[in-house]
Amino acid sequence: MHRFALLGAGFIGSVHAANLAAHPGVDLVAVYDIDGGRATSLAERVHSRGTTDISDVFDRAEIDAVLIASSTDTHAEHLRRAADAAMPVLCEKPIDLELARAVDVTAYALPRTPHAMVDFNRRFDRDYAELHRIVRSGQIGDVELIQMTSRGPSMPPLDYIAVSGGQMRDQTVHFFDLARWFSGLDPVTVFAAGSALAEPRLADLGDVDTSAVVLELPGGALVQIDSTRRIGYGYDERIEILGSTGMVEARRHRTGSVSRYSRGHVVDDGLHDGWFERVAPSYRAALDHFVQALDGGQIEPTLTEALKAQAIAEAATASLHSGRTEPIVYPTLTERSLP
Amino acid sequence: MHRFALLGAGFIGSVHAANLAAHPGVDLVAVYDIDGGRATSLAERVHSRGTTDISDVFDRAEIDAVLIASSTDTHAEHLRRAADAAMPVLCEKPIDLELARAVDVTAYALPRTPHAMVDFNRRFDRDYAELHRIVRSGQIGDVELIQMTSRGPSMPPLDYIAVSGGQMRDQTVHFFDLARWFSGLDPVTVFAAGSALAEPRLADLGDVDTSAVVLELPGGALVQIDSTRRIGYGYDERIEILGSTGMVEARRHRTGSVSRYSRGHVVDDGLHDGWFERVAPSYRAALDHFVQALDGGQIEPTLTEALKAQAIAEAATASLHSGRTEPIVYPTLTERSLP
Amino acid sequence: MHRFALLGAGFIGSVHAANLAAHPGVDLVAVYDIDGGRATSLAERVHSRGTTDISDVFDRAEIDAVLIASSTDTHAEHLRRAADAAMPVLCEKPIDLELARAVDVTAYALPRTPHAMVDFNRRFDRDYAELHRIVRSGQIGDVELIQMTSRGPSMPPLDYIAVSGGQMRDQTVHFFDLARWFSGLDPVTVFAAGSALAEPRLADLGDVDTSAVVLELPGGALVQIDSTRRIGYGYDERIEILGSTGMVEARRHRTGSVSRYSRGHVVDDGLHDGWFERVAPSYRAALDHFVQALDGGQIEPTLTEALKAQAIAEAATASLHSGRTEPIVYPTLTERSLP
Amino acid sequence: MHRFALLGAGFIGSVHAANLAAHPGVDLVAVYDIDGGRATSLAERVHSRGTTDISDVFDRAEIDAVLIASSTDTHAEHLRRAADAAMPVLCEKPIDLELARAVDVTAYALPRTPHAMVDFNRRFDRDYAELHRIVRSGQIGDVELIQMTSRGPSMPPLDYIAVSGGQMRDQTVHFFDLARWFSGLDPVTVFAAGSALAEPRLADLGDVDTSAVVLELPGGALVQIDSTRRIGYGYDERIEILGSTGMVEARRHRTGSVSRYSRGHVVDDGLHDGWFERVAPSYRAALDHFVQALDGGQIEPTLTEALKAQAIAEAATASLHSGRTEPIVYPTLTERSLP
Repeated sequence: MHRFALLGAGFIGSVHAANLAAHPGVDLVAVYDIDGGRATSLAERVHSRGTTDISDVFDRAEIDAVLIASSTDTHAEHLRRAADAAMPVLCEKPIDLELARAVDVTAYALPRTPHAMVDFNRRFDRDYAELHRIVRSGQIGDVELIQMTSRGPSMPPLDYIAVSGGQMRDQTVHFFDLARWFSGLDPVTVFAAGSALAEPRLADLGDVDTSAVVLELPGGALVQIDSTRRIGYGYDERIEILGSTGMVEARRHRTGSVSRYSRGHVVDDGLHDGWFERVAPSYRAALDHFVQALDGGQIEPTLTEALKAQAIAEAATASLHSGRTEPIVYPTLTERSLP
Repeated sequence: MHRFALLGAGFIGSVHAANLAAHPGVDLVAVYDIDGGRATSLAERVHSRGTTDISDVFDRAEIDAVLIASSTDTHAEHLRRAADAAMPVLCEKPIDLELARAVDVTAYALPRTPHAMVDFNRRFDRDYAELHRIVRSGQIGDVELIQMTSRGPSMPPLDYIAVSGGQMRDQTVHFFDLARWFSGLDPVTVFAAGSALAEPRLADLGDVDTSAVVLELPGGALVQIDSTRRIGYGYDERIEILGSTGMVEARRHRTGSVSRYSRGHVVDDGLHDGWFERVAPSYRAALDHFVQALDGGQIEPTLTEALKAQAIAEAATASLHSGRTEPIVYPTLTERSLP
Repeated sequence: MHRFALLGAGFIGSVHAANLAAHPGVDLVAVYDIDGGRATSLAERVHSRGTTDISDVFDRAEIDAVLIASSTDTHAEHLRRAADAAMPVLCEKPIDLELARAVDVTAYALPRTPHAMVDFNRRFDRDYAELHRIVRSGQIGDVELIQMTSRGPSMPPLDYIAVSGGQMRDQTVHFFDLARWFSGLDPVTVFAAGSALAEPRLADLGDVDTSAVVLELPGGALVQIDSTRRIGYGYDERIEILGSTGMVEARRHRTGSVSRYSRGHVVDDGLHDGWFERVAPSYRAALDHFVQALDGGQIEPTLTEALKAQAIAEAATASLHSGRTEPIVYPTLTERSLP
Repeated sequence: MHRFALLGAGFIGSVHAANLAAHPGVDLVAVYDIDGGRATSLAERVHSRGTTDISDVFDRAEIDAVLIASSTDTHAEHLRRAADAAMPVLCEKPIDLELARAVDVTAYALPRTPHAMVDFNRRFDRDYAELHRIVRSGQIGDVELIQMTSRGPSMPPLDYIAVSGGQMRDQTVHFFDLARWFSGLDPVTVFAAGSALAEPRLADLGDVDTSAVVLELPGGALVQIDSTRRIGYGYDERIEILGSTGMVEARRHRTGSVSRYSRGHVVDDGLHDGWFERVAPSYRAALDHFVQALDGGQIEPTLTEALKAQAIAEAATASLHSGRTEPIVYPTLTERSLP
């Protein structure tokens, strides 16, 4: 049994709490939040103990691992403390919204904690894992084109958007990570075009809600990603990977399998209303992967891989404004101590 | 070029006329109908010659083959004349509604005409032909269960129904033929249950519009067929064949490939409005098969096979009334001359 | 919180144990089994207490409800004890394999326990519930034809089959219950034909593994059910309901949404390997329904409804042997005390 | 009856010949080709007259309309002669590979011939026409994102590619036209990235076989197009249009509706092997549209619209080389006489 502390008792914290509580290899020892009422309330629901004292987490022998699901601006600090405690850590993305700071804390943490994973949960989606298996085993030959669609059901609140880093860093970054994972390659350039169609006020924030991205991989293969924040028909993800000898597709998910026949039309069950319902199983699978890694498995995605996805998001954001292909500059890690 | 005469200029005659005119190996020399205006009008549309004189068809050297699409009660007589002329013949089903008469004319015709085919066009449906190829090549092992659905879009006129022989002989008979064709076996018993739900007046005719049939094949494999005359959602056919090592399905056909996504639902293009739009290609393919047979290919289904399907329909009709499994008695052919 | 005891710690007992443990409104107080090791082992996995003493279940104030998942031949006795204790009970089907005994215990229990439900879990399948909602709300008009497919992945052990009551009572009975539920009607007659194709030794037991059933509903609507024990391609259920103004279908379930394109073919993810993976969510939903009924909701299916499904299975079994349509005789309940 | 002459007896000429011959409103009077044998051979197959004398086409009163399907470098000259004869003309794309020359002949022809149409046949695809109807009627709100996939089955010969104008002008141009047609807007900028993955020698021609294009429409909506020349799995087209209130999709076409079930997988019929089989019906529909226009209907796409699609292809080709967003400059037409 791995004794976990959970940092953060907001929405995504509560998702992790339920998954930790249900995992047969995990004992959820403590739930930390700066808001004591929130910590206690969530802890009670999962038969754990709430705390507002961070040293309860990092300075006690009874904790084996931490899951960081606190607010984004605290990830780096919590990661640093986990590194100081040489504690395995599963961290919600991003490490830090500011790439330089994310690089610094990664450089600091890598030699100090043996197991650090960033929770790009899409890698653990059942269908995407099957695409990865097919592609990496060579069944479709060389990758030539990847097409990914990421469309959210409704506009997030403007104040969330304002601190999210923008569509590339907040939403599309998941698919930048997938592009690297599927292809096994680091994209060399990125082009991005976007507009604020669903919420014109985004333009004032320098952000977009509808975008098209083209990545070029070493050797010339291409990746297309369309991302939108608000569609009228639920939560929509789909992926196609075209190789030199075949193509594989992860189709849209439907909520059920009922068809209604009437003259001229067949009405099928539609997409999930929200993103969470669609990706919930991949959160569980990601946690399970992390726990298996603690028991000796390989961890992925690592902090370094998360930095690479973030570097693509940086260049994509630059391209949104420049109107041209931008080179992607991946960070170099040199060990250093944090200030 | 095979020089054809077409007998019958009604709806199904006009379908055959168009197919004959378009076939590269066919010259449509004459269109016969008892109604001269109808014969001429159809003949003009396909650049042929209309006639009301049956000897124009059977007594002239310029005709190589006949296609019988005249009214059902004339099939037997036309078939007999074709036999006398030793002329190849493609005949609309049935040979005759009265099984005994159909047996007689078949016995007469078989030794006299080298090529006689009954137009059970479903065998030439692209998907059903693929099912047949898969099943007969042993890819799904031994046939264990066949499920067939035959559902018409709207109630035919009562006066058509009254002379049609009833649902088993008129509609389900196509699937009796398919059951034999797919399995390579002659069913031994049949059970049928039915009701007059869409048109209660059918009950007065001793007929049904909604039925379920179970055939048992030698060795114990089963065939289920549901037939309905009027559904609200277009024309619906589908077939499943379950074997000992796999299953194959010919799915419903759709009119197009457009999907409309809205919250909670996806609306796809539906089924064909009418039966003819659905089966039109199989009429062309059936004609092509016949023409190829004239050039040396094997012919099917033969008159004898058509009689077998009709014999199943007879027993099914008996079962509708008896409420029990009925044995299927296949006719024995002994050559005889017609009165 | 409802304090449950679980009777039976075999496979299906362990399924119920996990569901009970995870349900927020349930406290699983005790796990009973005649085999003490099995009871204890399962109890430990769900943080409960194992026992081999049935009075621990029925004679203690700490238990509010029981879930009967013990061997079939003990259901009636456990149900009787629950009735004596006026305790709500959720019972695995069947009440008893012998219809007369099932009738007796039902007559005894009905006035004594306020909440008794038989776990026909298919009613709680998400898609079937949606079909029910659509049909019962009149959206497809009057029901005219129901088509149900129930195909198991592999042959159960012969010694299981020998005590199962045969295919009608063991497998098809779920769909007899659904036929009543969808239509709101009690079928009046049944015809069944079957063969032992996958396992010829079944014939010695008077049983079949491949069958076709036709039910007739009051008013003439028909129900077709094909049941098979062993198919090569996973676990397969599908249902179509044809009404006078439309049709609804619950399609086969697939394990995933990946398509692999190559020349001439598209390979999609297939069906579930086993029946349990397919129906697992409906066990959870059935339990939830029962718990809600304890909190004041309506219970279904009741013991009486279960008896009706069983009565159809009796008549279907008779028809398998008689080769003719059999009337369905529903039991009359008169209160009596058990011997 | 409209009396047509067909110019060009190559592959696409033979397609048009068959369609003209089968159209009930058309009389195919002459087939012209510079190669007399080819002209005669094709003419015989469709019961027409072959000729190598172009004045047989343009100087005789018996011809009402021409269909230009000759080699690309002759389109402009044939169009000019049709204009001189004030003859309706249906012209294969492009008008001329050199945009300036296409502009000149269009400016010349427009005031001289009342009916000139360029054969962008995709507009007449049944599914795309349905998308257009839905989108233009406002059913999905404002267009926000269009995604189009155009993937050819096998690499065309290098000598064809060399004179084709490159992937943007030869292949993707069809989808530039569709983008304008669906949205009702003229794109303002284009970005294109591409590689020679299937045929590296394309790089020497400055051409690509795998590309991703992003168009921006006035108001900010985006269009994504991926085009590939050689895929391993048949001919693949699909289109999605995302609007502010819904999404519509024209799915991939399949050759049939057969599903083969085995453990773990379902194998469906795949895509068409070749592009022609997929688009054949749209050639017929395009011709029918032109004939209806001769009888008083509106013509589309006009020469002017074809020039616009070509202007987008010009800018896209420039972007392939510049690596940045390029403005699209639409040609201005001023009437002039050709040299």
